[in-house]
Amino acid sequence: MRSRPADAGHRSRGLISLFIGCVSASYTDSDEEDDVSPREKLQKSTKGFDDFCVRNINQAPFGRREIEIAEQEMPGIMALRKRAGDDKPLKGAKIVGCTHINAQTAVLLETLVELGACVRWAACNIYSTQNEVAAALAEAGFPVFAWRGETEEDFWWCIDKCVNAENWQPNMILDDGGDATHLMIKKYPAMFKMVKGIVEESVTGVHRLYQLSKAGKLTVTAMNVNDSVTKMKFDNLYSCRESVIDSLKRATDVMFGGKQVLVCGYGEVGKGCCQALKGLGCVVFISEIDPICALQACMDGLRVVKANEVIRQVDIVITATGNKNVITREMMDKMKNGTIVCNMGHSNTEIDVNSLRTPDLTWEKVRNQVDHVIWPDGKRIVLLAEGRLVNLSCSSIPSFVISITACTQALALIELFNAPPGRYKSDVYLLPKKMDEYVASLHLPSFDAHLSELTDEQAKYMGLNKAGPFKPNYYRY
Amino acid sequence: MRSRPADAGHRSRGLISLFIGCVSASYTDSDEEDDVSPREKLQKSTKGFDDFCVRNINQAPFGRREIEIAEQEMPGIMALRKRAGDDKPLKGAKIVGCTHINAQTAVLLETLVELGACVRWAACNIYSTQNEVAAALAEAGFPVFAWRGETEEDFWWCIDKCVNAENWQPNMILDDGGDATHLMIKKYPAMFKMVKGIVEESVTGVHRLYQLSKAGKLTVTAMNVNDSVTKMKFDNLYSCRESVIDSLKRATDVMFGGKQVLVCGYGEVGKGCCQALKGLGCVVFISEIDPICALQACMDGLRVVKANEVIRQVDIVITATGNKNVITREMMDKMKNGTIVCNMGHSNTEIDVNSLRTPDLTWEKVRNQVDHVIWPDGKRIVLLAEGRLVNLSCSSIPSFVISITACTQALALIELFNAPPGRYKSDVYLLPKKMDEYVASLHLPSFDAHLSELTDEQAKYMGLNKAGPFKPNYYRY
Amino acid sequence: MRSRPADAGHRSRGLISLFIGCVSASYTDSDEEDDVSPREKLQKSTKGFDDFCVRNINQAPFGRREIEIAEQEMPGIMALRKRAGDDKPLKGAKIVGCTHINAQTAVLLETLVELGACVRWAACNIYSTQNEVAAALAEAGFPVFAWRGETEEDFWWCIDKCVNAENWQPNMILDDGGDATHLMIKKYPAMFKMVKGIVEESVTGVHRLYQLSKAGKLTVTAMNVNDSVTKMKFDNLYSCRESVIDSLKRATDVMFGGKQVLVCGYGEVGKGCCQALKGLGCVVFISEIDPICALQACMDGLRVVKANEVIRQVDIVITATGNKNVITREMMDKMKNGTIVCNMGHSNTEIDVNSLRTPDLTWEKVRNQVDHVIWPDGKRIVLLAEGRLVNLSCSSIPSFVISITACTQALALIELFNAPPGRYKSDVYLLPKKMDEYVASLHLPSFDAHLSELTDEQAKYMGLNKAGPFKPNYYRY
Amino acid sequence: MRSRPADAGHRSRGLISLFIGCVSASYTDSDEEDDVSPREKLQKSTKGFDDFCVRNINQAPFGRREIEIAEQEMPGIMALRKRAGDDKPLKGAKIVGCTHINAQTAVLLETLVELGACVRWAACNIYSTQNEVAAALAEAGFPVFAWRGETEEDFWWCIDKCVNAENWQPNMILDDGGDATHLMIKKYPAMFKMVKGIVEESVTGVHRLYQLSKAGKLTVTAMNVNDSVTKMKFDNLYSCRESVIDSLKRATDVMFGGKQVLVCGYGEVGKGCCQALKGLGCVVFISEIDPICALQACMDGLRVVKANEVIRQVDIVITATGNKNVITREMMDKMKNGTIVCNMGHSNTEIDVNSLRTPDLTWEKVRNQVDHVIWPDGKRIVLLAEGRLVNLSCSSIPSFVISITACTQALALIELFNAPPGRYKSDVYLLPKKMDEYVASLHLPSFDAHLSELTDEQAKYMGLNKAGPFKPNYYRY
Repeated sequence: MRSRPADAGHRSRGLISLFIGCVSASYTDSDEEDDVSPREKLQKSTKGFDDFCVRNINQAPFGRREIEIAEQEMPGIMALRKRAGDDKPLKGAKIVGCTHINAQTAVLLETLVELGACVRWAACNIYSTQNEVAAALAEAGFPVFAWRGETEEDFWWCIDKCVNAENWQPNMILDDGGDATHLMIKKYPAMFKMVKGIVEESVTGVHRLYQLSKAGKLTVTAMNVNDSVTKMKFDNLYSCRESVIDSLKRATDVMFGGKQVLVCGYGEVGKGCCQALKGLGCVVFISEIDPICALQACMDGLRVVKANEVIRQVDIVITATGNKNVITREMMDKMKNGTIVCNMGHSNTEIDVNSLRTPDLTWEKVRNQVDHVIWPDGKRIVLLAEGRLVNLSCSSIPSFVISITACTQALALIELFNAPPGRYKSDVYLLPKKMDEYVASLHLPSFDAHLSELTDEQAKYMGLNKAGPFKPNYYRY
Repeated sequence: MRSRPADAGHRSRGLISLFIGCVSASYTDSDEEDDVSPREKLQKSTKGFDDFCVRNINQAPFGRREIEIAEQEMPGIMALRKRAGDDKPLKGAKIVGCTHINAQTAVLLETLVELGACVRWAACNIYSTQNEVAAALAEAGFPVFAWRGETEEDFWWCIDKCVNAENWQPNMILDDGGDATHLMIKKYPAMFKMVKGIVEESVTGVHRLYQLSKAGKLTVTAMNVNDSVTKMKFDNLYSCRESVIDSLKRATDVMFGGKQVLVCGYGEVGKGCCQALKGLGCVVFISEIDPICALQACMDGLRVVKANEVIRQVDIVITATGNKNVITREMMDKMKNGTIVCNMGHSNTEIDVNSLRTPDLTWEKVRNQVDHVIWPDGKRIVLLAEGRLVNLSCSSIPSFVISITACTQALALIELFNAPPGRYKSDVYLLPKKMDEYVASLHLPSFDAHLSELTDEQAKYMGLNKAGPFKPNYYRY
Repeated sequence: MRSRPADAGHRSRGLISLFIGCVSASYTDSDEEDDVSPREKLQKSTKGFDDFCVRNINQAPFGRREIEIAEQEMPGIMALRKRAGDDKPLKGAKIVGCTHINAQTAVLLETLVELGACVRWAACNIYSTQNEVAAALAEAGFPVFAWRGETEEDFWWCIDKCVNAENWQPNMILDDGGDATHLMIKKYPAMFKMVKGIVEESVTGVHRLYQLSKAGKLTVTAMNVNDSVTKMKFDNLYSCRESVIDSLKRATDVMFGGKQVLVCGYGEVGKGCCQALKGLGCVVFISEIDPICALQACMDGLRVVKANEVIRQVDIVITATGNKNVITREMMDKMKNGTIVCNMGHSNTEIDVNSLRTPDLTWEKVRNQVDHVIWPDGKRIVLLAEGRLVNLSCSSIPSFVISITACTQALALIELFNAPPGRYKSDVYLLPKKMDEYVASLHLPSFDAHLSELTDEQAKYMGLNKAGPFKPNYYRY
Repeated sequence: MRSRPADAGHRSRGLISLFIGCVSASYTDSDEEDDVSPREKLQKSTKGFDDFCVRNINQAPFGRREIEIAEQEMPGIMALRKRAGDDKPLKGAKIVGCTHINAQTAVLLETLVELGACVRWAACNIYSTQNEVAAALAEAGFPVFAWRGETEEDFWWCIDKCVNAENWQPNMILDDGGDATHLMIKKYPAMFKMVKGIVEESVTGVHRLYQLSKAGKLTVTAMNVNDSVTKMKFDNLYSCRESVIDSLKRATDVMFGGKQVLVCGYGEVGKGCCQALKGLGCVVFISEIDPICALQACMDGLRVVKANEVIRQVDIVITATGNKNVITREMMDKMKNGTIVCNMGHSNTEIDVNSLRTPDLTWEKVRNQVDHVIWPDGKRIVLLAEGRLVNLSCSSIPSFVISITACTQALALIELFNAPPGRYKSDVYLLPKKMDEYVASLHLPSFDAHLSELTDEQAKYMGLNKAGPFKPNYYRY
């Protein structure tokens, strides 16, 4: 089976960051060193419930407080909970969840239950579980199987416990990376056939679903929520606009004013980075392969260059391409002393970090997530997060962003669970635009934003339904 | 037949503005008052060519100079002319053109000829022809039928002269509004069947093509270049960012710093307006019906309100919705003295101008394209361009923007003319993304922008061809 | 005597522009060609008043309307008129005014009268008088001596008529350039000794006053309003931020997005230009001699270069240094085809225009205020306003900016006229900060801005008077 | 004697933050708990030097590495060290230093020595000493008397050890808060008379010097480097632009996009905050008492309001006035749940924190430097750093900013030490503008910025020396 590196395959910029954050204020997991495996412990909630497996049920009060704080900062999902609470649109839904487990996902889980669902939940990542939150969920009576520092074997055991339980035929999957889906297809194919729908959030998971579909092996309906407009914009443009600054500050205390920065890639992530960097007085250069994005950069007042044109002069290099080896050893050989190199893009491939692991170079860890790579002549390159996503590693993601993702997931579950037969086939679908708009609308009140409404006459003139959707599917926002 | 108001059905923000512009420096058409119809004149070029009908062939030298100036400012189309000049990819193409006729379209026309095409050309608008340019084209030996101030009958006569001529079976149509297509279908259905492709630029024309297609009456392939990415971004976001300021300054000399502005609609046009207005120190409010666009406005630091919340306090109101009656008489009744009201959106429907033509209100023309509408209590509303597109009426469009449109049109013609049988059916297509990217790439050198190139390894990793296209069709830019 | 070029010595960016503007919509002076000198005409107002000399008294109604429009757009001076109207703080003041004469100064003049003053008024520039406005002032019974197109002799004759009249001993001078002061000192020294105060607006006039003071020849108190904070910021930073875009658009229709611009000088004018240019997507380079301003440019995200580093690549060059020969022939020899060159700085010295008047270069006037200078190889440089201030020549100044200057002038007159003996000596003073603050406060209501007020406790803590002034004199804003 | 709270009287935003920072990555002072006072320890450097008193000399290697890192990030002071190293302009200077002691001030200290000075050094704050750095300085043979956690008595003992030593008659004082000066005047008046000059950095210290001067008790020359242009702009505008975002992110992980923020005060600090906040998509409101600053806010596109107009709706409140009780309990009673309240201004007086210490409110510490104050109805206000300067408490200051301050201090020492008799009297002076310009010029190379130079002709035209100063003293930048 595949190993589970911290961010493998998770384009989703949200959840994981809250735990791995190098400098994010957070409580300590003092019992993480506990050498008894949770699987070997007997634990019960104060009410005697024991269908769970977490690190330490006694941490529940602390986790509950974290959940309560998260609730305050997730206006959209809380509004959904309130609005749909009476309708119980998920009554009868039996959901296997496999996501990061933290305060924000706990809010999602408890919302799904509030809307009528039964759930069983495992972690999608062996490192990312907030043990206190898992404890709080267990204490509240939810079958949760997750702890920080699972082994590979633990990982699959936990998912199995969610899929295969007594008196339990799941009919929905909420997946983040595709592992619950994978396990059910492989190990419980009969059970999988009874599933009504899969909601998948990650790039990797979506990719696997499209492959299944292409191969004719997808026998249920799946919804790709990764590419819904609202989630996409928040996960990329807006989230990166905030986190690029935050990551670099926390990791290096660098002053931005007047710094020359090369941003490789001017997609949504690159655009978000540039907005923030320009706002703080950086001189920004762009490298791009796509002429349309390059022309956008020009019109936004940025110089478009080949990386090598400026590599000797820039102070900061940020990758945001989704490609591999965008920053090569050869380029890093040319950089000046003190250049900061980091990745905001995808996975850990953009910077050729392996090329730096040669005998002539010395690595010196100067802070958590910050390495100085030292050339024989004394030149130092400041490498952040060893080339992994720097905003996942060195900053935190606002709960507001996660609220949008959580809403999208919940609405996708509701849609798939309630869709009349025939609306969807066994294929991968994007979230209907109307639901995308609904997610957005749930988050407007936090900004005290007031939507206008079409008059009958206007709706007719535009050929629109007054309740939306308001744009054609190909609209680019 | 339908009448042809100045901007009827032309979302295209480009060409027309150069003639109707209220303050754009321009030469005078002293002979426009000439009361002899061009149709009754006998004119010949200096070389004896007479297959044309223009106002006054003697104006040719002046028109030629205008064309030469435009050539300098249209780097993309000139690059295309140069690159494809030897290949003659339009050799054998016989194109009926029906567009605005001005220096920029002359550059397009002469490029098409340079690429091998034969052409016959008419105007798509009775007001917009630059007579000197038409003269220069005639003098150069091109069959042009157009003058400023055509009657409705003249208009169709001119198109007819382009469609139906001796020894002329057109095989391509370049249309802007759909009139050449319409005439050929109605009057010369046999000839229409021989046409290989239609390239249509305008919203209206595209709409008519989709209707034809839906009705099963489209027997040839048509290309919708209105919705190509590059053209769309330039015509909307970038062009409006520049022209909103320019229009308001030329028309009213208003100071922007500190002004409160209501922008109705936060699509591409609204976004472009807001960027410019914020850059000059305005306080901007947005009204929106679409929650996704509204959320974008929030994240961009703009207050989203219902128009009525701020209508009494704002200094400037700009419509950019594409809808009708967005600004009603009731709202204008509430505005304060001196409020400027204008339309950057669509057609002339957004402001309910008719509601202002009541006996209690006095209209006072204070400048070309600027009316004061005076309430009984002395309050004045400053109405620009009588609610028509203010940037078409009160500013000019840079040739650079038109160069992009012209390239798109030329490439679409090349593609349709050379496409192997079977690539396209009798339907409406968007410009292939690769061509869209090519248009962008032709315009990068003016910005001294240098594209990066994928290595073989990177192309393989991304599953991309090194020459593009680089993005999936649904990518949002 | 010195000749009077259009903008000689007038740093003030305000008044003149309204007449020389290349494209500003304005009525025509059809009778300007009238070959009878106003000095030889006998004219009377409808009420029989004849102590004036203007082009044509019959133009008064048109001028009055212009004045009324200006009143609407000059909230500060109108508020001052209203607030101080009952106090008549200028009762007894006899003011010789010598300024540009146009609708905005007419509002100032009529405000001074409303506050109690008697006035006699001449023009400070032979080209800048709005004849209709002068007529309206005459019709209203004010002794005005000014018309557009005065000869040098007329110019001094008009001032003389304001200084030396029957039953008239002026006690205040409102000067713009120092000419009224100059004439009175030279020709009427006895009369000059009776003057209580001089208010001077222009850089040149202020410079002359400081020289007089240094030479011990200044026998009255003078107030330098040119350097008051509010006027300075508006005349430079804010006004240039608006007008740099406007001037370039009206003159050249250039697209700003992606353009590379060299701004020479990063003082207030340069800062204002850069804000606007960056807001529209330009890539801006700065050249500077002052390391502090250079460091500010760095921190604002701009590259600081020597002009020659980028002179071959930039699309637009703007001077804003106040120095001479900042752009030399040698630099212009290096510029690429189509480079636009203009001056936002001072006088007409920054661009070495004379160096372009050599036989090898051809000048071609392509528009009003726009010349193409053509090199032997066909390269064209686009020179605006022949190197004079481009915003005075090619755009208009908002009345709001002029309102601030007018308020400052009026308050300086009030202060000097009412100051108790001993407060001021025979020297040049800056406007007291409290008055500077008052000017600002008069303009806040137009922005619906609400000032906070110090509590007694806070005022005490800060050691401030609750009514201001709120900052020490050296505060930099 | 006065107590020494962490930021009492130190407007200077630089040094202290590095130690108190809530989340700044830093090594731990594991021996801080050591209960033996350094004063009772006998310590020697490896070379036998013992004229110092620090926590633990063995920490020297770690401190040396910190100093080396700081050197890399302080280009200006290192350039000065290099340029003036041969001249030894401080040869003969005997300096008593009393500043924060950390890696950056160590770079300053060692630069002064490199330039020829002898020094003795104490801390100006009982909490802010980096013990490792103090150890490194002692190891290098410098008489340093400082440790983190001094008592009030230790504090004065340390300063005394620097002032009064065998064979030591100091002739210069480098002070930060005025304590060394104070002690010398009070306790060693004869010694004080031999002092040639004082360089003072802090607002408080400067204030005390002006009071001494006013009272006729200042018998030596003092230089106020707090108000030098370069330091001021960096300490306020630029530094706050960076740190406001950083502080809020590290403390609260708040998302900025779309947040409504009230910034109280639009001086340099407020302007810096607003630039950053707008760059990340906040909606910003300003409250101001000064109409000039208010008008600037208007022109910058910000709404100017009385705090109470928006206090119920804003998400974040930031004070930047320098005043007291700007945010009162009454206002906080009106704020909505979750409002973040913090101070970027001065001292800890701006927010009336005491008013929150009432029995009806509950305080809950949720993170270091972050308190939730809970109203009886459950409403929570998020109070940062208990109302002290949030950027000193919750973020770090870039070394670059400190490099500017350090240069200014070194140059002021050089100037005072070398000034010919008569240049300065016994008064408080601002740094000569030319030196201010020199500080700026030393920092330009880090930005690869290239200054232009005046030609002889230009210098003459402007009446400037080619080497500067380039602006009059009243110039506002």
